[in-house]
Amino acid sequence: MTVEMHPSRWGDPAQAAPLPDSARGLVELVFGLTDRPAVAEVVVPVSGLAPALLAGLEDLLGAEHVLTDDALRRLRTRGKSTPDLLRQRAGDLSDAPDVVVRPNGHDEVAAVLAFAVEHHLAVVPFGGGTSVTGGLVARRAGYAGVVSLDLVRMKRLLAVDHTSMTATLEPGLRGPEAEALLAAEGLTLGHYPQSFEHASIGGFAATRSSGQSSAGYGRFDALVVGLRAATPRGELALGSSPANAAGPDLRQLLLGSEGAFGVITAVTVRVRRLPTEKVYEGWRWPSFEAGRDAMRTLAQAGLLPTVLRLSDEAETSINLARPDAIGDSSDGGCLMITGYEGTPEAVAARRDAVTPVLTGLGGLTADAGVGPAWVEGRFRAPYLRDSLLDVGVLVETLETATFWSNVPRLYADVKAALVASLGTSTLVLCHVSHVYETGCSLYFTVAAQEADDPLAQWAAAKAAASDAMVATGATITHHHAVGTDHKPWLAAEIGALGVSVLRAVKADLDPTGILNPGVLVD
Amino acid sequence: MTVEMHPSRWGDPAQAAPLPDSARGLVELVFGLTDRPAVAEVVVPVSGLAPALLAGLEDLLGAEHVLTDDALRRLRTRGKSTPDLLRQRAGDLSDAPDVVVRPNGHDEVAAVLAFAVEHHLAVVPFGGGTSVTGGLVARRAGYAGVVSLDLVRMKRLLAVDHTSMTATLEPGLRGPEAEALLAAEGLTLGHYPQSFEHASIGGFAATRSSGQSSAGYGRFDALVVGLRAATPRGELALGSSPANAAGPDLRQLLLGSEGAFGVITAVTVRVRRLPTEKVYEGWRWPSFEAGRDAMRTLAQAGLLPTVLRLSDEAETSINLARPDAIGDSSDGGCLMITGYEGTPEAVAARRDAVTPVLTGLGGLTADAGVGPAWVEGRFRAPYLRDSLLDVGVLVETLETATFWSNVPRLYADVKAALVASLGTSTLVLCHVSHVYETGCSLYFTVAAQEADDPLAQWAAAKAAASDAMVATGATITHHHAVGTDHKPWLAAEIGALGVSVLRAVKADLDPTGILNPGVLVD
Repeated sequence: MTVEMHPSRWGDPAQAAPLPDSARGLVELVFGLTDRPAVAEVVVPVSGLAPALLAGLEDLLGAEHVLTDDALRRLRTRGKSTPDLLRQRAGDLSDAPDVVVRPNGHDEVAAVLAFAVEHHLAVVPFGGGTSVTGGLVARRAGYAGVVSLDLVRMKRLLAVDHTSMTATLEPGLRGPEAEALLAAEGLTLGHYPQSFEHASIGGFAATRSSGQSSAGYGRFDALVVGLRAATPRGELALGSSPANAAGPDLRQLLLGSEGAFGVITAVTVRVRRLPTEKVYEGWRWPSFEAGRDAMRTLAQAGLLPTVLRLSDEAETSINLARPDAIGDSSDGGCLMITGYEGTPEAVAARRDAVTPVLTGLGGLTADAGVGPAWVEGRFRAPYLRDSLLDVGVLVETLETATFWSNVPRLYADVKAALVASLGTSTLVLCHVSHVYETGCSLYFTVAAQEADDPLAQWAAAKAAASDAMVATGATITHHHAVGTDHKPWLAAEIGALGVSVLRAVKADLDPTGILNPGVLVD
Repeated sequence: MTVEMHPSRWGDPAQAAPLPDSARGLVELVFGLTDRPAVAEVVVPVSGLAPALLAGLEDLLGAEHVLTDDALRRLRTRGKSTPDLLRQRAGDLSDAPDVVVRPNGHDEVAAVLAFAVEHHLAVVPFGGGTSVTGGLVARRAGYAGVVSLDLVRMKRLLAVDHTSMTATLEPGLRGPEAEALLAAEGLTLGHYPQSFEHASIGGFAATRSSGQSSAGYGRFDALVVGLRAATPRGELALGSSPANAAGPDLRQLLLGSEGAFGVITAVTVRVRRLPTEKVYEGWRWPSFEAGRDAMRTLAQAGLLPTVLRLSDEAETSINLARPDAIGDSSDGGCLMITGYEGTPEAVAARRDAVTPVLTGLGGLTADAGVGPAWVEGRFRAPYLRDSLLDVGVLVETLETATFWSNVPRLYADVKAALVASLGTSTLVLCHVSHVYETGCSLYFTVAAQEADDPLAQWAAAKAAASDAMVATGATITHHHAVGTDHKPWLAAEIGALGVSVLRAVKADLDPTGILNPGVLVD
């Protein structure tokens, strides 16, 4: 049974908690404390779907899989960005879908799409609901209604090939569910984004997700060898081979298509043997730059651990990795986490190769508890965001990536843009969590005292940061997709002609524009 | 000064040679010897381009870069597949372009395209002319003429970033030219397809080429981090970051676009430090299957050498790796080549990790001369094809890829299809030259006694082999692109809807269809 997330907070409602006492003093000192509870009662707009359409959907899927109750429609309203949470907390449910449908399998998804084309219904594919870029906010105007296409019944492991080391997964599987099915086969996918506990396989594919173990297992798009999708124009089935030269790789056109080109109904991924050994360690670096140089050296030498991340001075001092011990770090410098997963022999070999490189570059080993503490807290940060929103602290994250030589400028410019927009008491923390031979990602966490209109406050800051990213030539998003929030900057990144190509593909696959209207491209 | 290839043979005319004596006896025994010289005099069709159009092109580029002489137009006619060579040898130059233009840089390419749109001229981008899939055979009907857009003047190293380890190369650089420019910077690209000596950077990108060192350096599409292209609708400039989630990765839509979507005018690739140590070794396996299992073990353990290839029993016995010593191999079994490139430390570390795995799986080290002999002969096989065509032996290659569990079926079915089509005395040799965690490529070399109509003879065999590939679910091409030759099988691989998407992209970027008409999609 999949746990439904809290409607106006991240994650499992049972895990919601007030701000830890350890952090309360620091937060009060920097931002002050203001009680900002969510509104107690919210009204979900009445479902505007015509009864005949509802009956038509019930004919397709059975009445028990066509749902209009307010509680569920509230849970299917938007994703989990801070603006999404702020709107939910304020009782704004204007984006609620009219109906939630739960098809079981590719053919039923295709049937729903055909029905939606016939009756001009907007369809929003729903996997885990963890979008932080407005990927679940469909344009409503001009449609007969908005349908949340919930993939919750599509949770099968469709095939396993132990020789080729591939597995075919249905899109509704959440991270832990997919790993549990694979673990029973002695396998792992190894994809652990911060949203792991709630995000879905289909969502990972549709958004080009990247996980905390990307150095070892690869980005999600690099793990995919095959895809099946239902589109208004029929089926797309791709994946003849690990790699080929049969024209452009159309798998890479479905990956990142954010539900705007089709509904991904199966994903074939490369898998690895379940690791029998896992070691996580901490390293200290005198500066963010020194740590980054070490990461670059490892990446360019082909010596990456499974996990490799580095916090800047500010993030290290706040010690966000341990929400129960915020501010409780006096060692200074910059904290790096290295993790090794695999057989004991593989872990030992890679660790023995990496360790002297890091030591030789000036890295100092941190306390033995640092690595395990990071593992323990790795999925906890989003819960802390809710606790801070409760006391009037606006918290949000944003991320980007660039080539190594551009990293110092990108880091400085995004920080400066955020502080210029939000004020000098703003806290901007940063870490590198994904590295490549040619560059890396930068992930920023921002905290500021909430203004009277926090939505406008954040919109201005986000715009300033996004402008800074594209001005340096960096990407507007390394692993969170375009959604509706990043759309204004997409043309700056891929050009007006690139956007035109995406529109042409959408027009071909979804000629009447029913799929996630307004997401990715207009 | 770029060496022009022989008009009706592969490669440098100075290196053309008759069939080596060592092979002559064997060939006579199996196929008989029939003298099949190319026709002595050929007539190039008169350039059909209207004088006003010629003058217009001369205005754009200067008269010295707009060429219509017969000798050059003959050299720009088709590529280097066996059917291409057979047509050239028979004096069929019906696909000759009307004019060869040599723009210098992106803006001049864009100007040529604008002119071609205005006057409805078909434009065939020309890099190295090594296509083996009919990628240079544009449809002529309905156009005011066929323009060969020769990239020979675009041979600059536009940028080098030693921190990010990237380099930006112009598309006209041939393999050795690119490597020479990079070597002066202490860098290498490491892309060595069999066509290396003549093929171009633009061609590598446009066809998703893969080289003999793909295990260590990666396929060409995996080396590309940025692309610039001129299209009839304007410029496409892609590559904000090593990887991102800003929608689908449009770089992967230009890679493999075969000149049908735009003309690639710059390619930014990741580069590596020039290796200071290179070691190549031979291994013997009792069977093709045992050798393949060893390759799979290495790939799935993350222990690939820089070069890893394996010949089946037939190819091993013929010893194609050494054209000067064909048939001179009595050790039996299957020959594997392993190559290691890098620093002495990196070479030693990888070799020390790989060697016990291969030994443990039953591999026996071959004579010390085997590895260096492979390196010596690695670009020679296409010259041998010409020598065999001279004596009436039809020789051609084809290649495919699939997932490991499907390899035995693919191998058997393609071989059976070729023998069924060409007769029982047909020689079918095979090797694996590109491996992935989830699968590998199969590269077949076919030799048969030439029939009266060798074009029809090969067309039937090629169709039978291609049918067998798609029937097993494999790709119709791992690294040779679609061109015109593979187009009939593309829909079987990516579906009618996949072809429709490619058409939609082409219609958006090239609305009047001037770019390489008939190549990739109709």
